Amino acid sequence: MAEISASWTLSPDRLFDPDPAQRALARAFYERVARLPIVSPHGHVDPRLFADPNARFGSPADLLIIPDHYVFRMLYSQGVPLEDLGVPRRDGGPVETDHRRIWQRFADSFHLFRGTPSGLWLQHELIEVFGVRQPLNSRTAQAIYDQIDDALHRPEFRPRALFERFNIEVLCTTDAASDPLAAHQAIRASGWGGQVRPTFRPDAVTNLLTADWLSQIQALAAAVGRDISTYREFLDALRDRRAFFRRMGATATDHGVTESYTERLTPEEAASIFDRALRGRVENDDARRFTGHMLIEMARMSLEDGLVMQIHAGVFRNHNPALFAEFGPDKGADIPLPCDFVRGLKPLLDEVGREPRLTIILFTMDETTYARELAPLAGHYPALRLGPPWWFHDSYNGMRRYFDQVLETAGLYNTAGFNDDTRAFPSIPARHDVWRRASCNWLADRVVRGLIAEEDAAEMAVEMAVGLARRAYRLPDPAAANG
Amino acid sequence: MAEISASWTLSPDRLFDPDPAQRALARAFYERVARLPIVSPHGHVDPRLFADPNARFGSPADLLIIPDHYVFRMLYSQGVPLEDLGVPRRDGGPVETDHRRIWQRFADSFHLFRGTPSGLWLQHELIEVFGVRQPLNSRTAQAIYDQIDDALHRPEFRPRALFERFNIEVLCTTDAASDPLAAHQAIRASGWGGQVRPTFRPDAVTNLLTADWLSQIQALAAAVGRDISTYREFLDALRDRRAFFRRMGATATDHGVTESYTERLTPEEAASIFDRALRGRVENDDARRFTGHMLIEMARMSLEDGLVMQIHAGVFRNHNPALFAEFGPDKGADIPLPCDFVRGLKPLLDEVGREPRLTIILFTMDETTYARELAPLAGHYPALRLGPPWWFHDSYNGMRRYFDQVLETAGLYNTAGFNDDTRAFPSIPARHDVWRRASCNWLADRVVRGLIAEEDAAEMAVEMAVGLARRAYRLPDPAAANG
Amino acid sequence: MAEISASWTLSPDRLFDPDPAQRALARAFYERVARLPIVSPHGHVDPRLFADPNARFGSPADLLIIPDHYVFRMLYSQGVPLEDLGVPRRDGGPVETDHRRIWQRFADSFHLFRGTPSGLWLQHELIEVFGVRQPLNSRTAQAIYDQIDDALHRPEFRPRALFERFNIEVLCTTDAASDPLAAHQAIRASGWGGQVRPTFRPDAVTNLLTADWLSQIQALAAAVGRDISTYREFLDALRDRRAFFRRMGATATDHGVTESYTERLTPEEAASIFDRALRGRVENDDARRFTGHMLIEMARMSLEDGLVMQIHAGVFRNHNPALFAEFGPDKGADIPLPCDFVRGLKPLLDEVGREPRLTIILFTMDETTYARELAPLAGHYPALRLGPPWWFHDSYNGMRRYFDQVLETAGLYNTAGFNDDTRAFPSIPARHDVWRRASCNWLADRVVRGLIAEEDAAEMAVEMAVGLARRAYRLPDPAAANG
Repeated sequence: MAEISASWTLSPDRLFDPDPAQRALARAFYERVARLPIVSPHGHVDPRLFADPNARFGSPADLLIIPDHYVFRMLYSQGVPLEDLGVPRRDGGPVETDHRRIWQRFADSFHLFRGTPSGLWLQHELIEVFGVRQPLNSRTAQAIYDQIDDALHRPEFRPRALFERFNIEVLCTTDAASDPLAAHQAIRASGWGGQVRPTFRPDAVTNLLTADWLSQIQALAAAVGRDISTYREFLDALRDRRAFFRRMGATATDHGVTESYTERLTPEEAASIFDRALRGRVENDDARRFTGHMLIEMARMSLEDGLVMQIHAGVFRNHNPALFAEFGPDKGADIPLPCDFVRGLKPLLDEVGREPRLTIILFTMDETTYARELAPLAGHYPALRLGPPWWFHDSYNGMRRYFDQVLETAGLYNTAGFNDDTRAFPSIPARHDVWRRASCNWLADRVVRGLIAEEDAAEMAVEMAVGLARRAYRLPDPAAANG
Repeated sequence: MAEISASWTLSPDRLFDPDPAQRALARAFYERVARLPIVSPHGHVDPRLFADPNARFGSPADLLIIPDHYVFRMLYSQGVPLEDLGVPRRDGGPVETDHRRIWQRFADSFHLFRGTPSGLWLQHELIEVFGVRQPLNSRTAQAIYDQIDDALHRPEFRPRALFERFNIEVLCTTDAASDPLAAHQAIRASGWGGQVRPTFRPDAVTNLLTADWLSQIQALAAAVGRDISTYREFLDALRDRRAFFRRMGATATDHGVTESYTERLTPEEAASIFDRALRGRVENDDARRFTGHMLIEMARMSLEDGLVMQIHAGVFRNHNPALFAEFGPDKGADIPLPCDFVRGLKPLLDEVGREPRLTIILFTMDETTYARELAPLAGHYPALRLGPPWWFHDSYNGMRRYFDQVLETAGLYNTAGFNDDTRAFPSIPARHDVWRRASCNWLADRVVRGLIAEEDAAEMAVEMAVGLARRAYRLPDPAAANG
Repeated sequence: MAEISASWTLSPDRLFDPDPAQRALARAFYERVARLPIVSPHGHVDPRLFADPNARFGSPADLLIIPDHYVFRMLYSQGVPLEDLGVPRRDGGPVETDHRRIWQRFADSFHLFRGTPSGLWLQHELIEVFGVRQPLNSRTAQAIYDQIDDALHRPEFRPRALFERFNIEVLCTTDAASDPLAAHQAIRASGWGGQVRPTFRPDAVTNLLTADWLSQIQALAAAVGRDISTYREFLDALRDRRAFFRRMGATATDHGVTESYTERLTPEEAASIFDRALRGRVENDDARRFTGHMLIEMARMSLEDGLVMQIHAGVFRNHNPALFAEFGPDKGADIPLPCDFVRGLKPLLDEVGREPRLTIILFTMDETTYARELAPLAGHYPALRLGPPWWFHDSYNGMRRYFDQVLETAGLYNTAGFNDDTRAFPSIPARHDVWRRASCNWLADRVVRGLIAEEDAAEMAVEMAVGLARRAYRLPDPAAANG
């Protein structure tokens, strides 16, 4: 019964229901998928980690605390200043530089992560990736720091080595429209076998409210080697960059929007708003309408070039303005918003929803739309698929709610498998493991209730682990290629 | 543990929790209700099936695929054109007419229904109604087609025979205000003992946005044998038709509305909007207000004539306009919307909510209102009862969420039991069986947690199966009549 | 297996999952917390009960039915007039005065409470507090009335005696800003050891729509012994009263608002609205803005004086106007509303959200905000803590949904433990017992799934029972004081 004891271990049956019949089935399904390769079709890992064969991760604090807003937001919420955790200030003002002290503070507060997904991932990383054998706390902090720091100096803990050890089949990054993809080019040129693909994310140029929008447009112009002074030239530049991303292995685009809102502008309206933006005269409503229009334009281009379209909707970014001023974006102050997919996506779906050649993958953190909107929409429109539970909902409970509220109406085959969506590279195996365990446990639940046949569930487990993601993102199946 | 094996069977314990104590209780409760007659107080079965003693169901595709949007929407969502499934086009354009090919396509995609309520109903129908013994798939498709087709040619598979075999105590249909109820009259005249009752649904005339509203008004006028040229005459016509429906056995009305919105217009305002509508000059806001007003008028008439009032709120009909243009309504493109019952129903409740003589049964697909709005409202207003989970939520998970979120606050006795709400006649036993199993399992859960006494739960199981529905819909209890 | 049998008992394992492994753990955790003192940091018990050592509770109907809207709303919803339950009419019109008849009616309808939290509390009170041994029903009603009535005449059933028997460490009441706290003063003066603290609730003066707002302002002026003719004097009066409440032992304020809306007015705007209000010229939007502004002002004062700030948001009060006219407020006709915390609280959080010295505890009945808004906000802002499930959600299912949707993202340590929030004094042990059982069962669930270590969960159980509430409300820990 002791699941996590003083000799720190992970229960081999973690996340499974305690009922013996269900647990036995869940374990059987899990054994089929536990060692399958990792398909990571969407995330934010920095590709430079893999461009240089000798790249290293830095200190334990560099790896696990300073860049991870999932982690430092929890300490911040309990009154720990971000400065004390070494998070860099925008103004270059003083922050803690002693990484052992940062680590100690983190360890002193590790109880805050009890029962949280971050806590489970961190435990998985420490135990499985670094071989830590004692629970992290105030007393053990420095010894564990030594152990990790030592490991990080060894070749087998370099990014490429971990990529291989993690058995990653493919890792997709997320990249600005103007990004030259130098790291991706270097990876290819290096002859290393790891599959790292870019994803085309044009938000910085399609969202007119981007703080440095004009510079972003100039960067885009530089990337295509042509001026962008009209809406038409803007569309052409995007088309060019999409082609370049496809040549570099991209199979998908990604669009992060505050609202699940779309609107079809006339070419004249779009051009006129774009012109105003170039002259620095954007009004808020312009931006909303233009972003909504550009989603439809991007869907149209996807219909032409075959890139899968991801939409991540409904986040109030940088909700804490003073923190934003001091530390910038991605500091744990992004808060989900309600979404309206039924009315908001209608203009988009009116144009392209019926196209089976197109794939649009929807993500939300507004769970009220799972059963009410997303499952019925995905269970109808050929172009739609549903992405997995995202961000705060990338958790055991979040997955249970998703399975519970989505699968009956949408059907499993209108979903897109799992995304880890992380910038924390060493957490990738932990995250996929949670999904695989949670999905196997869900399938076992359905089988013991007589709702799914055992042999069907065994197939579905493999689909949920790798098959759905590969197909939704149009990623090659190595087995099929060999067959 | 094998629940659904290669020799196709249904687990006798399906839908029950695996814990042995809970499962034993659930089974005991289920045994009390499994063979009770079916009370079906709301649905969309065509009464003509029972008017002619020799009516037949057509081919297996006619019965199970072509008319069932729950089924063909799932294939459509995965890229199968509706034409290939024999769904008729409005323009009479070519669609598949070979029902064996339609059936084969359906069988080829039967895996899409894994874990869905449609999948469970279909399996129940094939196994229990038609005696199929091998799983439906590409290989078995034609043999199963033969088996069903053969059955459908036999007298014991005629609609009346199945009605009796299904042990249906009462089946309520849904009928337009102007419907002459010819089939209901024929059923009565035939001397057949099956109880088939109409339900008064005046949406086509109370919703000014109905595409052919003027024709609908003319049909209503024809039905009452008088002109309708004023709002007052309109109300009188509705009152007449309600009286006719009651004479034909109706105990309820039904109102399908986009929004849970009510508003009390002055008689002058109502008359003026109605006049504008007759002259074809409706504005959108007119329609919204008039529909909201007519809900109050209908409640007033219910208070007079005793018809139970059903409100089905919150559906965006025909969300896919191109599909609607080609195939018409009810093609799987209706998507739920958020509802606001607290403010939206206030004008209605201000007038009649305190009337214990009135019964208004509310249905929604916006589950966020279960615990926040509907349960507190029904746990207060004497006139309100809550209908069961509806449409997409008529499922195992949907019922669990409903029980979880409604029953603590509303109390069981402010709910209205189960509705199958189906046009798919052979799915009726399957749907009631899911409800009975899910409700017995819920009660067993409450008993093993010490929240409900076992003997109370046994009574509640019977209430949930038949008692609550009979009383909420004011349907006679045969036992009481005999007693 | 019989949980509640004909010899009326409470299952010792009630609320625990049936799985033997989980149940054993839940029981073990519960044994650690079952007999801990009750910390009740928010509620509506009348302090006069404890001011007079000889105070009594009246009849069984006085105690359990007439003042409890949780109870009489359920009977009302099934058509029982409030007059028949002895609820006093505003106009002094006739209501039932025979408390035995009221009790009989209640007992006749006791089945309505099956599976409801009120049913569980009532059963707990009858069995545990009054020693009732037979189930309450029509037959047993009068004998049980006799038994309770007899007990209520005995000294050990006086309020102070029950306070001690219930092992209440601290009980916080809720009091108007102008309240002289005479009862609290009398309790202190009496030398009795029970800890009863006031809570500062200024809604009647901060909400300009209060029916008798001007009288409330006059009462406030009388309480401070100064005129209030300007906004500045109003703020000063509030500051004075807060200081008085703190001297009387208050550690918190409470703010009940229809909307989770805040807005920073300029001092001039605030003064101008206040002036209009004094002249009786408030417009609705004035009130909304002023209330939203005063929340920020109250937070500012909390930052100065250290009073913890509670916000209870999102209730449509007195939804049934005819009932309100006849019986007044708090008659079971308050219905929850959707909340928007992300945008609504932003002006407040922009000013004080980053202050670790401040504690704001948020409550809602809009569960859709748990995972989407509240958990991410509390998991970020140092000033925020989340209150327990409230009112309709103070129930077994309500707690499960709260644990499920809040704890992963917010973390346990950003929550504020339990509140009973009741005016029904004898229900306090029952309510805390439900919370303790539900939280121990939740922890056991996490342990058997390997998500929390057993020894950590044992600590967390104590935190959930008493520790989090003490710290969030800044109440002294007697053990720490002794230590």
